[in-house]
Amino acid sequence: MNEIYLHDVPLGEAWSRFREALHAAGLWGPLEAEEIPLEEALGRVTAEPVWAAASSPHYHAAAMDGYAVRAGSTERASDRSPITLSTTSEAQYVDTGDPLPVWADAVVPIENVEPVDPDELGRARRAIVVRTPLPPWSNVRLMGEDIVATELVLPAGHVLRPVDLGAIAGSGRGTVKAWRRPRVAVIPTGSELVPPGGPARPGKIPEYNSIVLAAQVDGWGGAPTRWEIIPDDELRIRRAVAEAAASHDLVLINAGSSAGSEDYTARVVSSLGELLVHGVAVRPGHPVILGTIRAGSRVVPAIGVPGYPVSAALTGEIFVEPLISLWLGRPPAEPQGVDAVLTRKVHSSAGDDEYLRVTVGRVGERLVAAPLSRGAGVITSLVRADGIVIIPAGVQGLEAGERVRVRLYRGSQEVDRTIVVLGSHDLTIDLMAQFLAQKGSRLSSANVGSVGGLIALGRGEAHLAGSHLLDPASGEFNIPYIAQYLPDVPVVVVALVRREQGLIVSAGNPKEVRSLQDLTRTGLIFVNRQRAAGTRLLLDHHLTRLGISPEEIRGYAREEYTHLAVAVAVASGRADAGLGIRAAASALGLDFVPLFQERYDLVIPQAHYSSAVLRPLLDLLGDPGFRRAVGELPGYDPAPMGTTIASIP
Amino acid sequence: MNEIYLHDVPLGEAWSRFREALHAAGLWGPLEAEEIPLEEALGRVTAEPVWAAASSPHYHAAAMDGYAVRAGSTERASDRSPITLSTTSEAQYVDTGDPLPVWADAVVPIENVEPVDPDELGRARRAIVVRTPLPPWSNVRLMGEDIVATELVLPAGHVLRPVDLGAIAGSGRGTVKAWRRPRVAVIPTGSELVPPGGPARPGKIPEYNSIVLAAQVDGWGGAPTRWEIIPDDELRIRRAVAEAAASHDLVLINAGSSAGSEDYTARVVSSLGELLVHGVAVRPGHPVILGTIRAGSRVVPAIGVPGYPVSAALTGEIFVEPLISLWLGRPPAEPQGVDAVLTRKVHSSAGDDEYLRVTVGRVGERLVAAPLSRGAGVITSLVRADGIVIIPAGVQGLEAGERVRVRLYRGSQEVDRTIVVLGSHDLTIDLMAQFLAQKGSRLSSANVGSVGGLIALGRGEAHLAGSHLLDPASGEFNIPYIAQYLPDVPVVVVALVRREQGLIVSAGNPKEVRSLQDLTRTGLIFVNRQRAAGTRLLLDHHLTRLGISPEEIRGYAREEYTHLAVAVAVASGRADAGLGIRAAASALGLDFVPLFQERYDLVIPQAHYSSAVLRPLLDLLGDPGFRRAVGELPGYDPAPMGTTIASIP
Repeated sequence: MNEIYLHDVPLGEAWSRFREALHAAGLWGPLEAEEIPLEEALGRVTAEPVWAAASSPHYHAAAMDGYAVRAGSTERASDRSPITLSTTSEAQYVDTGDPLPVWADAVVPIENVEPVDPDELGRARRAIVVRTPLPPWSNVRLMGEDIVATELVLPAGHVLRPVDLGAIAGSGRGTVKAWRRPRVAVIPTGSELVPPGGPARPGKIPEYNSIVLAAQVDGWGGAPTRWEIIPDDELRIRRAVAEAAASHDLVLINAGSSAGSEDYTARVVSSLGELLVHGVAVRPGHPVILGTIRAGSRVVPAIGVPGYPVSAALTGEIFVEPLISLWLGRPPAEPQGVDAVLTRKVHSSAGDDEYLRVTVGRVGERLVAAPLSRGAGVITSLVRADGIVIIPAGVQGLEAGERVRVRLYRGSQEVDRTIVVLGSHDLTIDLMAQFLAQKGSRLSSANVGSVGGLIALGRGEAHLAGSHLLDPASGEFNIPYIAQYLPDVPVVVVALVRREQGLIVSAGNPKEVRSLQDLTRTGLIFVNRQRAAGTRLLLDHHLTRLGISPEEIRGYAREEYTHLAVAVAVASGRADAGLGIRAAASALGLDFVPLFQERYDLVIPQAHYSSAVLRPLLDLLGDPGFRRAVGELPGYDPAPMGTTIASIP
Repeated sequence: MNEIYLHDVPLGEAWSRFREALHAAGLWGPLEAEEIPLEEALGRVTAEPVWAAASSPHYHAAAMDGYAVRAGSTERASDRSPITLSTTSEAQYVDTGDPLPVWADAVVPIENVEPVDPDELGRARRAIVVRTPLPPWSNVRLMGEDIVATELVLPAGHVLRPVDLGAIAGSGRGTVKAWRRPRVAVIPTGSELVPPGGPARPGKIPEYNSIVLAAQVDGWGGAPTRWEIIPDDELRIRRAVAEAAASHDLVLINAGSSAGSEDYTARVVSSLGELLVHGVAVRPGHPVILGTIRAGSRVVPAIGVPGYPVSAALTGEIFVEPLISLWLGRPPAEPQGVDAVLTRKVHSSAGDDEYLRVTVGRVGERLVAAPLSRGAGVITSLVRADGIVIIPAGVQGLEAGERVRVRLYRGSQEVDRTIVVLGSHDLTIDLMAQFLAQKGSRLSSANVGSVGGLIALGRGEAHLAGSHLLDPASGEFNIPYIAQYLPDVPVVVVALVRREQGLIVSAGNPKEVRSLQDLTRTGLIFVNRQRAAGTRLLLDHHLTRLGISPEEIRGYAREEYTHLAVAVAVASGRADAGLGIRAAASALGLDFVPLFQERYDLVIPQAHYSSAVLRPLLDLLGDPGFRRAVGELPGYDPAPMGTTIASIP
């Protein structure tokens, strides 16, 4: 039932097997050329050089509205002895673009022409007066000024932009020869899949890889066709693949590319053609299948795309994009590369090329790259990614502070405009991202806890940190910790909100949790926040005060990184209670037992406080719409927002 | 007949009148939002934040194929005392993505499972053996790992990429609210216009501005509709504009926006609504019209787009793109800006903002920007442009060597890959551009004459120069001139071709021109090349040798910058003869009187000779396909191609 024959080969080896098979089938190069009308040619790639069929202009044309004349006849014109030219024999009215009469070689602009009889203005003039001599060919667009017939207008392999279409038309052509768009079939398979947007039922997953893959193909210049979802039924999958191959240039089968009991893709490809590769040593994404399918006399490449969404999207970038570019006769996409400093250590499997997703921001003079979630199932990590760092096979990992090459998904200007926030998680930060986006600014945040945020500021990895660290001795928030963690960094501390902290419990509070003391009850499972999170420090402070030892609390060691993650643990039954903010409980329809009020501050190094990149964020703190939106979050009080708490030193 | 009421206002003033009118009409902001299926949403802009409707995964899911178990039941498992779990009560087979049974909290991967009876492999197992303890939640994708319900998935104003569509679907939605695409009507007007691709008749111009404008609108995210060409008939234009306004959000009327006898656009806009601006102080492009049109209860903005193709395309960038971006709820396009050094002095009208088209290349450490033709009719200048330098009103011009800000039309990586060639014009250079494009490299050339090219090398403005300078004293090509113009620059001189020079004359040579002596004949008009061009030096050398004075040749003072331009002058009857290469004569079907043979060399500073950017060009000199193509050009001999003539010093 489970035939485990997946065997990862290195990426280079996988491509070379694929290339060889495509080469043998005559598919290692552009598909056929087709003649298309210019109005449909935007974004298409020229299949041959475009040589001008005609000159532009193809005759000497008036460059202004005015009178065509012989330049020689104006030679002696001057203010004191103006020259009169008859409009029946010596001057002829022309509009811009009109052909010059054969006898003429210059145009007197209409504004320099003096009518003989002012009364005749508005009707045809019988003669004009000229007071300035004209050099030959003045105000004339000479034939061929723009394009000379037979000249090269555009090379082959050129991606057509709007102005290119104009130049081709100007050179006497109404059509252009472009490479045909590759037709790509995208077949989603899996009995667990349902179309997106329906009700969420356990075991049923919304199918969206086919939407992502089709959109990728479309954006890269291919013509995608999405199939309906096919259940895990080998016969039906085989039928769909054969049908797709008959009318397409490439077939993408998603997923069933692994080696589980219901993974039929490899068998289907084998039965319809040749299985070339089953498993590629890239992470995420390794259960990729490469093969070819026979469709009558044609050979059609097929790719088994892994089911995890990040793997699927990266398989598109790694295998589908280069193939489409090849078939379109242009070089493969080449993302802009920048050097950045990695914010934290990353381990990597030495056997695989790893595609590490990162956010990138410019903090002071340095570009910093912060690794995102590495889960193959976490599509939001690709949504949030500003780029990819490839950790090649053979490298065990990267150190914090190491210089890495990032392939950017965004323009570097957008990266330069990005505000990097590290520290404690707060819903206001998400709301801030939303408001800033509408003002053309970007906020990129990662949750590393309050103390983690301060440490990151010390290392120059963020523009500001969100922090809510209560000092038990003084009862003060943040200031004592800043003295401890950032002794040498001058900072401004600005209040963001006051908010409620309390216990997040199941709806209806079935276990009747009322206080921290209740957490020691048998049969009650707690979920904690990570070490150095402000909420964790708050908990520990109060446990000490109450004389409760962590060992008395079951689940104390189980750590989550955000308020919402704590709420999820409770909502899914993994835990009965966790300390967090009211808004997280409300979001998932859970109950909340309020315990404390706390202040959440922004800690901003002086160097960034006055920088242009932070301006939009600081302005936002005084924005009434933003205040109102924050006030509507359950348990939030925006009253202190924008108050400068301290300037240190 | 000619009402001259065009009055240029500054760009800022034009925009502020337009903004005010749009504001009053409720059009200064995004159009309506519409709910669209995800599969149609690529490139669209979110009209509101996307909050997660469901978590992803929305249940605890197996992260691997294997057996769902209670983690606690494996606690004591070890190699020496394996634990056996019954598949009817203690372990349950799950595929990746399957929901975990409620009693389970971990998955044993299939590869770590040992069947009780090896014979049963391939059929259902009755029990499994586990030899390693599992921590709780191992190999489980926890509910909400990717997305937690109610979380912000994407902000409003976000341009949707393929992975975004996946994240929205993953968050429980099948549709997304996006701003409606603006519908833009493009109406070409002009009795002189004909659809492109037909035969070239004098006075008839291929109409392509509407193709360029429609492609721009399409690329910017609008939905264009192109009208048929309307002749210069005020009534018909008015009818078309009214009809377009009834079903569109923006009407572009091209052209008739100037103040000539057949320029009806301003009158049409006035009669159907309000004329706000007639003339904007930008160059090229100034006869722009901005107005609004009443269509029932709606107000529809209208733009009169100037007829010259460069003006038309820039009007699109300056007025249409920001409007479409505004209506799509995103910030206006922001081209990447780079600093570059201007290669030559440029005068500019102090009254206008001038949009100067430039090519850009990286020569050594510096980016250099070379101004292109400034004619509003020269669309190839936009095709060749790598970017735009804006010379603001109030500035009279820019000096050679001045630092300028360039808005790039291409990625800076493409610019870094560009080979910059200045110097003498030769058809082989065009062919080279074509061959290099197919290898993913770019060649940008400008014709400044052989001596101009050497001077440019001395100033560090080009990677190499094309030169064919005959030294009369030694009979040698180029070397003596290099000693004179580049005394301090070590260079390598590589031969490109031998080619014929001679007199380009009308087909059939009606004036029976046979030699340079014939140029002194009465009734014969000559066309010359510019000072310091190799061909000009060649001519002057032979005239001196023959004892002919320039004054004896009519047309000696009329200068053209390329061989093809000389041929065009002859073909259009402006001149009877000019000195040039055979290929230029052949291109336009002219006759050719061969006089001399000369060598055309590439002069390459040592510093660039060994650089990576020039590698593809030097390789090309040994490419048999390229040699063959050059040999097929009339009058060309590729025999010396690639030979190193000299290394100096």
